[in-house]
Amino acid sequence: MSGNVRPETMERITTPELAQAFIDEQIKELRAQIGDKKVLLALSGGVDSSVVAALLIKAVGKQLVCVHVNHGLLRKGEPEQVIEVFRNQMNANLIYVDAVDRFLDKLAGVADPETKRKIIGAEFIRVFEEEARKLDDIDFLGQGTIYPDILESADGVKAHHNVGGLPEDLQFELVEPVKLLFKDEVRVVGKALGLPDGMVFRQPFPGPGLGVRCLGAITRDRLECVRESDAILREEFAKNGLEGKVWQYFTVVPDFKSVGVKDGKRTFAYPVILRAINTTDAMTATVEDVPFSLLQHITNRITHEVEGVNRVLFDLTPKPVATIEWE
Amino acid sequence: MSGNVRPETMERITTPELAQAFIDEQIKELRAQIGDKKVLLALSGGVDSSVVAALLIKAVGKQLVCVHVNHGLLRKGEPEQVIEVFRNQMNANLIYVDAVDRFLDKLAGVADPETKRKIIGAEFIRVFEEEARKLDDIDFLGQGTIYPDILESADGVKAHHNVGGLPEDLQFELVEPVKLLFKDEVRVVGKALGLPDGMVFRQPFPGPGLGVRCLGAITRDRLECVRESDAILREEFAKNGLEGKVWQYFTVVPDFKSVGVKDGKRTFAYPVILRAINTTDAMTATVEDVPFSLLQHITNRITHEVEGVNRVLFDLTPKPVATIEWE
Repeated sequence: MSGNVRPETMERITTPELAQAFIDEQIKELRAQIGDKKVLLALSGGVDSSVVAALLIKAVGKQLVCVHVNHGLLRKGEPEQVIEVFRNQMNANLIYVDAVDRFLDKLAGVADPETKRKIIGAEFIRVFEEEARKLDDIDFLGQGTIYPDILESADGVKAHHNVGGLPEDLQFELVEPVKLLFKDEVRVVGKALGLPDGMVFRQPFPGPGLGVRCLGAITRDRLECVRESDAILREEFAKNGLEGKVWQYFTVVPDFKSVGVKDGKRTFAYPVILRAINTTDAMTATVEDVPFSLLQHITNRITHEVEGVNRVLFDLTPKPVATIEWE
Repeated sequence: MSGNVRPETMERITTPELAQAFIDEQIKELRAQIGDKKVLLALSGGVDSSVVAALLIKAVGKQLVCVHVNHGLLRKGEPEQVIEVFRNQMNANLIYVDAVDRFLDKLAGVADPETKRKIIGAEFIRVFEEEARKLDDIDFLGQGTIYPDILESADGVKAHHNVGGLPEDLQFELVEPVKLLFKDEVRVVGKALGLPDGMVFRQPFPGPGLGVRCLGAITRDRLECVRESDAILREEFAKNGLEGKVWQYFTVVPDFKSVGVKDGKRTFAYPVILRAINTTDAMTATVEDVPFSLLQHITNRITHEVEGVNRVLFDLTPKPVATIEWE
């Protein structure tokens, strides 16, 4: 698939049959493009890179080398799921890089959100570059570019969010099999490829991951508060029919403590902020009316199961005047 | 009324008739105790000191000198209400002390909650002492002691919350006309004395006032965020039938900002936390299930009417594991 303009005649992929036709066509095109060469792919576990990985595995099997970088800012269970799905189930050539300490050490004491984002982005490139240098004979770089990325880049609105910034001597030919698809089409294709629902219908997740939800300077204890409370929120939303209904939901932990009481003793601990919003275009967003009894149950679980937390707050603010994320 | 033990035969004051009988008896007793001497009273505007003031005005008129200290940590409209009710309507001898700058200057940069409380308490005594020294021939000190204060002091649970700590040379004979009454009886008596509902049914308010709800080091801008958002919350709860139904409700502003967007521009401002709880004994408390539409309306008003605020959060945490206040 060449060119960056979606043909007007291209049918929207909405059914398993259309998805299968797309997959069959892509497998042919990918084989023609790649031949017997190798492809490198940064596999985050998000829906776009996962669909690209699954397509490439079907097309060229072990000629694909996936690199999954665990930077410590992923949601609970995500690195494990990437290994389970791609290495164990799809038999992919997967390099798992545990870079948790490396990222958290770099981020220690850095409170400014922009600086945090830059450190995470730059360190990611560095880790990926190091892995790429260990490999021989790589000619292609797979990327989970989707059509909105191309539209936004053309508008100059947003820097390209996929792997970029690699040095001159590490430039590869790009393989971007879903670059003309919209997000909903990527999901239909992902389903047809046999990816699990938890991966295909994964909520949008910012590049810097939980790093922008552990507000201010990231510490390991607060990062665990974010990760554990987020897992409880996701579990309870799934159990109570809100998964797939609510567009995005997550937790945030500010660098701020308050007084509480537990077993008759005074505590001084962090609050967890719950965010649950709906949007069609991410330019505006409304707050989901989560049933009070469920909010109470989630509050009870988080304050009893997550170490270092003594309050739970619900963010009532639409966008505008707030933004979806906190920093 | 002598002695600190409520007689077992004393009937619970639940009706206007019983309240009137109590008032008539107290007026006689107060006149007998005070004669033609002067009484000094620290009038906060809370229900206890207001009822004592109203009783003393009925008993000895201008022999009562009320001192109202505005320390800058009162709710919106409270100092104005004290002046309106006592000076304008009841024609009381009222000294209004504007000590706002004095308190806020002392509190500047002080983040520790206990230190904040101590500064507010000590400064209050100092201001009151200065006013007392300007007056001649004061023999009595009125106090809004109520029966639970006496019961708690006897238990050693809580330091007496009324004016104390005055120096040796400023010791007066105490006048405590409601010291054998429970809170609900004080309210019935206050109604019978003609005090406005907003004063008689005022929610419990901590001694250090809004100072403990402007978390950490108090600044004037955040203090205004607390005061203005609290006024909106109270107005909306009153309009929507929650006043008197919900035991206590207030707002808290942490020393923490987040990103938002207004008129297409990025903002960086404070969140306001809403707290609305019910309790019977203040040892445990549950969170009120405030209708979501009302929470949305309050959020909209606060984020549009209060300068420097871009988010509103609802505190979902019962006591335990949280406490009612945040610090």
